[in-house]
Amino acid sequence: LTLSICDSRTIWWDDGLWLIDQTRLPVELKPIKMHSMKELIEAIVTLRVRGAPALGAAGAYGIALAAQLSPSDNPFELLQELEIAGQMIKSARPTAVNLSWGADRALKAAASQDSAQGIKEAALREAEQIAEEDIAINMMLGQKGALLLEDGDRVLTHCNAGRLACVSWGTALGVIRSAVQMGKEIHVYACETRPLHQGSRLTAWELIQEGLDVTLICESASGSLMRQGKIDKAIVGADRITRDAVFNKIGTYNHAVLARAHSLPFYVAAPLSTFDLKHSEMDITIEERGAEELCSIGGVQLAPANVRVYNPAFDATPLDLVTGLITEKGVFRPPLMPPI
Amino acid sequence: LTLSICDSRTIWWDDGLWLIDQTRLPVELKPIKMHSMKELIEAIVTLRVRGAPALGAAGAYGIALAAQLSPSDNPFELLQELEIAGQMIKSARPTAVNLSWGADRALKAAASQDSAQGIKEAALREAEQIAEEDIAINMMLGQKGALLLEDGDRVLTHCNAGRLACVSWGTALGVIRSAVQMGKEIHVYACETRPLHQGSRLTAWELIQEGLDVTLICESASGSLMRQGKIDKAIVGADRITRDAVFNKIGTYNHAVLARAHSLPFYVAAPLSTFDLKHSEMDITIEERGAEELCSIGGVQLAPANVRVYNPAFDATPLDLVTGLITEKGVFRPPLMPPI
Repeated sequence: LTLSICDSRTIWWDDGLWLIDQTRLPVELKPIKMHSMKELIEAIVTLRVRGAPALGAAGAYGIALAAQLSPSDNPFELLQELEIAGQMIKSARPTAVNLSWGADRALKAAASQDSAQGIKEAALREAEQIAEEDIAINMMLGQKGALLLEDGDRVLTHCNAGRLACVSWGTALGVIRSAVQMGKEIHVYACETRPLHQGSRLTAWELIQEGLDVTLICESASGSLMRQGKIDKAIVGADRITRDAVFNKIGTYNHAVLARAHSLPFYVAAPLSTFDLKHSEMDITIEERGAEELCSIGGVQLAPANVRVYNPAFDATPLDLVTGLITEKGVFRPPLMPPI
Repeated sequence: LTLSICDSRTIWWDDGLWLIDQTRLPVELKPIKMHSMKELIEAIVTLRVRGAPALGAAGAYGIALAAQLSPSDNPFELLQELEIAGQMIKSARPTAVNLSWGADRALKAAASQDSAQGIKEAALREAEQIAEEDIAINMMLGQKGALLLEDGDRVLTHCNAGRLACVSWGTALGVIRSAVQMGKEIHVYACETRPLHQGSRLTAWELIQEGLDVTLICESASGSLMRQGKIDKAIVGADRITRDAVFNKIGTYNHAVLARAHSLPFYVAAPLSTFDLKHSEMDITIEERGAEELCSIGGVQLAPANVRVYNPAFDATPLDLVTGLITEKGVFRPPLMPPI
């Protein structure tokens, strides 16, 4: 049962919180159960679960998990515990807005209840609701975005904005899935995405699983391919969209500048929950990760000991480099933004 | 003795051909002796020795090695053997022009002799001459290029165009060494350079060895750093410069487009032996390397089995993106080219 759930869901509830351990891919498709808040926070920090929409669900399920694990039957105490759990969850990864968004929705649902049992049920119900919504939203977003793709298009993507980044279906890869479902032939160039290889480990894996057409490249080959006329469009996901910039995996900005230099469309696919129009680029902290991600893999030393490393997880792409923002409410061409 | 040679030389002759095994860095500085032409070809193909100027010396030393190993005392037969050795060497890596250039110089020197002993001595003498010239040329190139750098500059580089890419001193890193020797403070941002990590394994290693100031990044962070105003200039090496383009490690073109988009100077440092003004970009074959370079490291699987991979070793950067070509004869600003 669990393995068949894995084929369509990245995160789910089955007498507790389960998720696919994405650090084990492409070697094995392994579901893991979260036994404590500490385990969940560790899973978020180490990217066992990652991707903006999936983190939205993880934020909400995290509140449901904290409620389930609490021995308290005092509703006031229980809500206080959930608030603390919410703070822990939100600070696990500062750049992705969806984590806060999901946790806050579950907290709000919980706060509307006046019994401990009611709180627990409401938090879980809201998390399940978010997960269902995420699937429906991604399908809608995919349908709208697919209209932008033409039969035969060769599409560049970066990192993983696929079903593994969401509860199911995917954002950038959801658009490609929907286009293929409409009968269009689409070829994907997947950037491997250093330092954590989400492109080779996850994007290439999930596309091959479904029999879609993919070629793996180093991100450093994107410009050369564009110059050779081998890329028609680029589509990426987003971790946060402020009123002036798209925050996404480091390297997104490079591809956006290169797409502009070659007069190619550059699309960002993201649900409305990724938009944060109250803030601008300057307000957002970009998460910096550890040096070890660049310095070794599986015990193989790739850099001298103690080398200074700058390892930002994300970059900011100004909206004027973005041809269109693909959402469940349609495609918005900056400076036009979705009404939120 | 051998280890102290390693501190200044990448390739040398000591009763046979020796080189630093660059695939062992940064773990160990290991000199290896070439016992056969097969070993040398393997060392070139697997990048135990790499870098355009070092390959120039390797091409010439390879002819000297073939001569030393031959049992023939018939000068006509010996020259025929050397011609065949030259073909093997040149086809080991098709894009780097220096390999052919070095082999051809040694072959020409050998052909001027009329005894087997004379041929052997002439080939080795020419190889030693090329190695000495390479050091002198890099020092001159460094001096001229260093005038372009200002005190406090933060310089982006890609791959390794350092002393490990040459017989000694380096081209792009030679410019930085010379600037530091002039008393300028230079900070280097070294791109790790996927898939073979020449930036983290070699560039970071050799700069740290000399106490120079370096920060390691993923190449995907170059644009973001430029946009933040943290890069002043970019300097890279070259594997071949045709009359219209610079061939260098894959990713060079991305940095060049990004430098232009941020109005930053983009320099290429290369000796005249790297210039191939008889040819244009369209004439040159770009070496494609195996999928395994992207799919695993040290037994860790990074991509699904049998994924299709496009892994070009180089890209072409049109000269109009290059601010200056730094050579031993001075700095040439395209469309001006050195008189060759």
